[in-house]
Amino acid sequence: MQKQRVLILGAGFGGMFTARHLARHSDLFDVEIIDEENYFVFQPLLPEVVAGTIEASDAVAPLRRLLPNSIKVREAQVVGIDLERREIEVVQGMGRKLRKIGYDQLVIAMGSRVDLSRFPGLADHAFTMKDLSDAFALRNHLVDCLEQADITEEPELKRRLLTFAVIGGGLSGVEVLGEMEHMLSSALRFYPHIRREELRFALIEYAPTILAEMPENLSAYALRRLQKRGVEIYTGQGVKSASSDTVELSDGRLIHGMTIIATIGNSPPPLLAELPIAKQRGRIATDHCLRVPGQDGVWALGDAAAVPAEPPPADSRPHRRADDPKVEVPPPTAAPPTAQAARQQAKVLAANLVAQARGEPMTPFHYRSKGQLASLGGQRGIANILGVNISGFPAFFLWRLLYLGMLPGAATKTRVAVDWLLGLFLRRNLVKVVQRMEPAIFQSHYREGDVVFREGDACGPFFIVMAGRFERKSRGADTIEIIERGGVFGESALKGEKTRQSTVTALENGCCLVIKRDDFALLSKGWQVLAPRMEAEWRRTAEAEELTQRESVPAQQNRR
Amino acid sequence: MQKQRVLILGAGFGGMFTARHLARHSDLFDVEIIDEENYFVFQPLLPEVVAGTIEASDAVAPLRRLLPNSIKVREAQVVGIDLERREIEVVQGMGRKLRKIGYDQLVIAMGSRVDLSRFPGLADHAFTMKDLSDAFALRNHLVDCLEQADITEEPELKRRLLTFAVIGGGLSGVEVLGEMEHMLSSALRFYPHIRREELRFALIEYAPTILAEMPENLSAYALRRLQKRGVEIYTGQGVKSASSDTVELSDGRLIHGMTIIATIGNSPPPLLAELPIAKQRGRIATDHCLRVPGQDGVWALGDAAAVPAEPPPADSRPHRRADDPKVEVPPPTAAPPTAQAARQQAKVLAANLVAQARGEPMTPFHYRSKGQLASLGGQRGIANILGVNISGFPAFFLWRLLYLGMLPGAATKTRVAVDWLLGLFLRRNLVKVVQRMEPAIFQSHYREGDVVFREGDACGPFFIVMAGRFERKSRGADTIEIIERGGVFGESALKGEKTRQSTVTALENGCCLVIKRDDFALLSKGWQVLAPRMEAEWRRTAEAEELTQRESVPAQQNRR
Repeated sequence: MQKQRVLILGAGFGGMFTARHLARHSDLFDVEIIDEENYFVFQPLLPEVVAGTIEASDAVAPLRRLLPNSIKVREAQVVGIDLERREIEVVQGMGRKLRKIGYDQLVIAMGSRVDLSRFPGLADHAFTMKDLSDAFALRNHLVDCLEQADITEEPELKRRLLTFAVIGGGLSGVEVLGEMEHMLSSALRFYPHIRREELRFALIEYAPTILAEMPENLSAYALRRLQKRGVEIYTGQGVKSASSDTVELSDGRLIHGMTIIATIGNSPPPLLAELPIAKQRGRIATDHCLRVPGQDGVWALGDAAAVPAEPPPADSRPHRRADDPKVEVPPPTAAPPTAQAARQQAKVLAANLVAQARGEPMTPFHYRSKGQLASLGGQRGIANILGVNISGFPAFFLWRLLYLGMLPGAATKTRVAVDWLLGLFLRRNLVKVVQRMEPAIFQSHYREGDVVFREGDACGPFFIVMAGRFERKSRGADTIEIIERGGVFGESALKGEKTRQSTVTALENGCCLVIKRDDFALLSKGWQVLAPRMEAEWRRTAEAEELTQRESVPAQQNRR
Repeated sequence: MQKQRVLILGAGFGGMFTARHLARHSDLFDVEIIDEENYFVFQPLLPEVVAGTIEASDAVAPLRRLLPNSIKVREAQVVGIDLERREIEVVQGMGRKLRKIGYDQLVIAMGSRVDLSRFPGLADHAFTMKDLSDAFALRNHLVDCLEQADITEEPELKRRLLTFAVIGGGLSGVEVLGEMEHMLSSALRFYPHIRREELRFALIEYAPTILAEMPENLSAYALRRLQKRGVEIYTGQGVKSASSDTVELSDGRLIHGMTIIATIGNSPPPLLAELPIAKQRGRIATDHCLRVPGQDGVWALGDAAAVPAEPPPADSRPHRRADDPKVEVPPPTAAPPTAQAARQQAKVLAANLVAQARGEPMTPFHYRSKGQLASLGGQRGIANILGVNISGFPAFFLWRLLYLGMLPGAATKTRVAVDWLLGLFLRRNLVKVVQRMEPAIFQSHYREGDVVFREGDACGPFFIVMAGRFERKSRGADTIEIIERGGVFGESALKGEKTRQSTVTALENGCCLVIKRDDFALLSKGWQVLAPRMEAEWRRTAEAEELTQRESVPAQQNRR
C-alpha cells in the first residue's frame, strides 16, 4: 500500500500535537509540517516572559526536537491553498523561493491572527501578545519606560511613561496585567526616583465583567485582587481610538499612557477567507470528525476551526464510516479556541486519519474541559479544576504544576522548572534584549555574475542601483535590459504580482539600495501624498548630488 | 567639603568597575554612569550565546543590579563632550530629549566600535561580535541556514548556506568559530538532509599565524584542533571585498558562503576623534595615573584609552602628587585592549580619584597579565596561566571556572553555572529568537493638541502628514505654519542640524508616516540617484492616488 502524504499547516497546539500523534504511523503516512517559525510557542507562558520570570527561549521549543526525524519540518510561509489541485504554495528561504507541495491529506491548523483594524490607531500603537517577539518587544518597552521615568525631569512625561493600559479583560489580558504589575512593582527597588504610587494600571473590558469565561466567584476574586493592587478596571467600555500615548474609551474618557497592550481582535488567518468552504465567524466549520465537509482529505482543528464540541445526538449513529458521503451541518456550539481544546482535537484528528487510511470507523470529537487556570502575578492565581474553585497561592502553585506537565519535551520542562526554582532566590532580570533585525533599508553589494533574483521567485524587495550595471532578462521577452546607476528593478511586487517576472544579474561589481517590500508599500503611500509637493525638492537634491558625484567620487569610471 | 560630581561615560569593564569601586566613597563623590544600554555585557561569553550554551540574558547583567542605588544610572547616548565648559551632552528617551550634564571629574570609558569601512562591502554583509544583539543576530542566522539547507533542492544554494567564513584569527575569531562549528555539527542530528561533510568553515587571518597573542605551542595546538575539525585556515590573507555570499581574499581567491563574520576592525568611538587631546592610534593617550594630560579632572581607561602598561622607570619618581603640573609623554607600550586590563585599570583609576579628592599621592598603573584563555568549542580550550601552558579539556574546564569567577553579581554567576550544568544533560536550544524592532517606517496617530516634537529636542525621524492638520511654530519666527496632508516636517535633521528648530503640534486628530532618521538618510541617497528618472512615475502614481482618494476615502472631510 502506498503511503499517504499528509501536510500539516501550522505548528501550534493543534498542528504540532497532530504530528506527534502521527509519528507512530510512519507505515501509513509521510508527514510534513509547515510553519513560519522553526519552533513551537507555548503561548500561556508569554506573560511570564514579559515579566522575566522565565527565559524567553523556555516558552518555546524547537519543532525538530519535539518531533522525530521521520516528520519533515519546513520553515516557510504558506501563501496559497489550492483545494482543487490538492497542492499548497509556500515561500521559503532568504531567496524567497516559491514552491508547490502536493498532498493526499491536508490538516489546516493555522491558528489565529490579531486584527485590530476596527479600532483607529490601535494597530499602529498597541503591543499584542501572540508570539515570542511580542513578549520580547513588550518587555523591552517596559524596561525602557522605567529607565526613562527614573531620569526624566518632566512630570507629565513621567506620568505617561508610568501608565499602562491593557485592553481586553479575558484570561490573556488579566494574566499579562498581573505579571506586569508584579514585575514593575518589584523592579522599583532599582529605580530610586520612582515611587509605587506613580505606577498606574488600567484594564479595559467591553463585557460587563472581567474573566467572563470563569465561574463568577473566581472572576470576583480576581477583580478584588487586582483592585487591591491598584489596578483601575473599566468594564463595559470599548476602545474608540488610540494614539502613541492615549487610549480613548467609548464613553470619551482618555487614558494617557505610553504603553497600550491589546489582547483583543483574534481572527482567522486571511488566507482562509479565500477558501471555498463553509465558515463560522471566519473559522472553518468541520464535521464531528474534524473533516472539512465537501472536501475529501481536508481537515481542520484548533483556533482556525469551528469544531462541534459534542458528538451528534444519540439518535444519529455516533460512529460513521470514512466513505460515508453524507455531509452534516455542524451544530452551533463549537469547542472554545483554547490550547486545551486544540490538544484534544489533535488526538482525535490523528486517530481519524489513521482510521480513514485503514478503512476503519472514525471517532467523533467530544470536548471535555478539565478546568481553567489563571495566574494573577505575585504568586496568586485562580483555578477551576473539575468543578472545584481554588484561589490565591494554592491556585498559583497548581497553575505552575499543571503547565509544567503540559510543556512538551523533557528539556523544556526541566529548564522552566529550574527557572521557577531560581526565581525564588534570585532577582528578576531587568535586561533589555535588543536584537537587530534585518533592516528595512540597506545596501547590498554584488559581484559580477551574481544573480540578484530569478524569474519565478516570490516577489521580495525593491532595488535602486547605486553603482555597477545589472542585466534584466525574462523568458518571454527577447530584449535584455541594462540597468545602471539611478535605475530600479524589483518594482513588480508593487503592481500586485506574486512572482518575479524577470531574472536580474550583476554584469560587474556593483551595489544596490534595497528596500523591503512591506516598507516600500508603506513608503509608496507616503510618496503619493508627498510627490506633488516635493518634486522640485527632489530635483534640486538630485542636481546637487550629481555635481558632488562628478567632483568627488569617480564612480562613473567603473562603467565600461 | 562639597562632593565632586563624577561622570563615567560607558558601562563596559572599565566604566562599570570604576563605578563599583567608587561606590564606597559616597562621602566624596556623586557618581553617574551613562551608557546606551541599561546592562553590562560580558563580551567573552558572546560566542557561547551564539552557540546556545548559555542563555543570552546570562551574558549580560542589569547595571542597576550591579551598582548600588547611590550611583545614578542614565540610559542615554553621549553626543557631545565639551572639555572647555566641563559638560557632556546626551540624547535620552523616546522623546529624544537633549540634556547637558556638568562634571567635576570625567571618566571616559567608551570602549571601541567596529569600523569595517576599509573593506568594500564588508560592513553591509558581515556579522560582528560586539554586543548581545550581534550574538543574537548571528545565532538566528545560523539556525536559518540549517533550516533552509535542510529543505532546499538547489545544490549550489545549499553549499552557500553551509559555508561559514570568519575573518580575524585572534581570540574572538577563534572562539566564535570553535563554538559555531561545535553547535552546527551537533545540531545536524535534527537536520536529516544535511551531512557533516557538507559544512564548510574558513578562518581568515591577515597575520602569518592565528592567535598571535598566545604562546607559540598553544596557537599551534589550536591550529591543529581546528584543522582536525575540518576548518580551512587562510593565514597571511586580507579581505579585498565582500558581497552577500562571497568573500574575496587578497590573493583573489573567493569563498562563497552566506555567513561572513568579521572580528576585525576595532576602532575608538568617532566622538573621541573630535576631542583636542593627544591620541595613540585613535585611543586617548593617558599618563601613568590614567589622567588625560593637559585636561584637569579628565580620565580615560579601557579600550578607548592607551594607558602605559608599566610605571615610569625607577629614575623618575614612581608616585607623583595630584597637583604636579608636569605632563609626561606616555611611553609607547600601552596595556592591551582586554577586559583583564580594563578591570585592573578601573581599580587604579578609582583609587586615584579618591587620592586627588583627598590630596594624597596617586598610584601609577602597572599591568600584570594573569594569563590568557581561549575556548575552542567542543569542550576544548587553550590556556596560559601564570606562564604555564595548558590545552584540551583541562583548559576548557579552567576557562569556565575562571570566567564564572569574573562574572559580576551572584545571580548571574548562579544562572550561568546552572546553564553549563544543564548543558551537560540537555540538548542545545535551536530556537530562533526573532524580536520585532521598532520598524524603520511606520504610521503614528496623534490627537488634537499632541506635541509631536519640541524645539530643542534632538533631531529624530522625518514625518509625512497623511491626515489631519499640524502646526509648526518656532520661537524665533513670528509666523505659524499649518501643515496638511502631503506636507512634511522634521526634515531639519537632513540639513545636518542637531536639534529641532521648531515645535510641531497636532491641531486635530491626524496621522503621519514616520521614517527614522538613519533610514531616511539612506533613502535620500537612493532618491538622489532615483529622482531624475522617477519624477514622471511619481507624478503618475500621485495623480492616480489623488483620484482614488477623492473617490473612495472621504478623508478630506476631517478638515475644518
